[in-house]
Amino acid sequence: MFVTLAGGVGAARFLAGLTAVVPPEAVAAIVNTGDDLELYGLAISPDLDTVLYTLSGRVDPERGWGLAGDTTHVLEALAALGEQPFFRLGDRDLATHLFRTARLRSGQTLTEVTALLAGRLGVRSQVLPMANEPVRTRVITPEGELAFQEYFVARGHRDDVLALRFVGAEAARPPPEALAALAAARAIIIAPSNPFVSIGAILAVPGYREAIATARVPRVAISPIVGGQALKGPADRMLRTLGHEPSALGVARLYRSLVDCFVLDTLDAELASAVAALGMQPLVTNTIMRGPAERAALARVVVEAVQ
Amino acid sequence: MFVTLAGGVGAARFLAGLTAVVPPEAVAAIVNTGDDLELYGLAISPDLDTVLYTLSGRVDPERGWGLAGDTTHVLEALAALGEQPFFRLGDRDLATHLFRTARLRSGQTLTEVTALLAGRLGVRSQVLPMANEPVRTRVITPEGELAFQEYFVARGHRDDVLALRFVGAEAARPPPEALAALAAARAIIIAPSNPFVSIGAILAVPGYREAIATARVPRVAISPIVGGQALKGPADRMLRTLGHEPSALGVARLYRSLVDCFVLDTLDAELASAVAALGMQPLVTNTIMRGPAERAALARVVVEAVQ
Repeated sequence: MFVTLAGGVGAARFLAGLTAVVPPEAVAAIVNTGDDLELYGLAISPDLDTVLYTLSGRVDPERGWGLAGDTTHVLEALAALGEQPFFRLGDRDLATHLFRTARLRSGQTLTEVTALLAGRLGVRSQVLPMANEPVRTRVITPEGELAFQEYFVARGHRDDVLALRFVGAEAARPPPEALAALAAARAIIIAPSNPFVSIGAILAVPGYREAIATARVPRVAISPIVGGQALKGPADRMLRTLGHEPSALGVARLYRSLVDCFVLDTLDAELASAVAALGMQPLVTNTIMRGPAERAALARVVVEAVQ
Repeated sequence: MFVTLAGGVGAARFLAGLTAVVPPEAVAAIVNTGDDLELYGLAISPDLDTVLYTLSGRVDPERGWGLAGDTTHVLEALAALGEQPFFRLGDRDLATHLFRTARLRSGQTLTEVTALLAGRLGVRSQVLPMANEPVRTRVITPEGELAFQEYFVARGHRDDVLALRFVGAEAARPPPEALAALAAARAIIIAPSNPFVSIGAILAVPGYREAIATARVPRVAISPIVGGQALKGPADRMLRTLGHEPSALGVARLYRSLVDCFVLDTLDAELASAVAALGMQPLVTNTIMRGPAERAALARVVVEAVQ
């Protein structure tokens, strides 16, 4: 089992590559749910959906999230009613939220609902929420504390992030299926996701850090920062405002005690010796995933490294 | 104020006629919410929506419910996920449910949400739910007890109705706005709706029967049965299985102590003397509303009768 800690778009693209080079059934993703939100009574899990839509080949390839070819009739009708929903709700995407919401309300766990949804979408990898309990990432900014999607979507992640809170994380636990996947892992991979709001949210749930730190299998992290810049999202600025070096090395330091190997982009080859000095094996390769070939190539390098 | 007790399609069509012959601001509708349901976490109020969509000119004219020209992308996507929702959810219609659900969850009453929705839709009449508290009509059939929409939509009202229960009605109360409307009424009208599951549900809420019985204004009911048949829905069969005469006279008997005047279709003119014998003034006119002209004509007869 290749167990991957995953955020949204970057992780989903890596997972698509991974399932192209190893059997999809041999892949498990433990996915951040700190970005989850309730909107109009609907339970929305953006990262889980991004992973499911990507692995089922349904994702909008340009954006990397949402469903390809989706319409927005509901959203337009909400706007006609004077609503201004900050979160994009595609019509077919809404069906996923309705599917999830109904089952959560009837008492199923998020793990169960996600497995059911994965099955209905034809996803053969195991897609797991980081916790069944709600965890909500809160972002402390100079403008005050914001709910994650308020920071990320409504305000376009323009605010400086001074600190993060993962409300509910202390009381949350990894689902048994996630611990089982980690126990059965032949490798643990940290996807190229935001180290704070994606991977950090997962690691804030008691149990993960210990399970990974004590795992006797190869553990690899892939830098989400290339040439000092996040390929997507605000990870580079977060590194800076949270007091870290805004580079792949800054990320490597965050994962220091957690992984054995750190994947750097070829553009960051000069950081390899500094990564090695942290006690992690540096692995330099192309990490920018423009299309399926590059995703698979990156995944192949990672798979070869752990074998 | 012309205060009308209303169910769904038939009542909405009558109200459309009424607002064509008197100023819309002079019309208040107290609408059945016993048919309300929760589906996929959404709060759905079919009769309120039918009235709002009709009075705002947005209703699908053929069906008499739902929005004209609505699409069903969400529903199709739910079906693609293996769901079989028995309730038709149009995309633009879903926006109404999301609008309502979000506000109910944030603590607004159904009366407040409905008033807001009416305002956003440009409806100038007062549209009121019969209660802010949830009331759920349950239908006892030879197959067992069914939730109303399970009986009505999922099973196509094919089961014999042996009895009805209005769960929550005892604890519910007319919203203050409904009592105020009744107190300010210059006439009270019972729309041509199902006397059991529409009007009966309203009257099951403690307070309405008394308010109407003691009102010192003209009170008129319009028969939903013409020539022994319901124009729409199962009212005729319900009359029979619930032990009443399946005719306009059977309905008149149900409203005996409640109204002063009973409107019969011209096809039922021969029942006029039997209605008069019940102590109600019979009013014979065309009650079949095929289009706007017929709706307005029926409303005009009713308005003239109460003046």
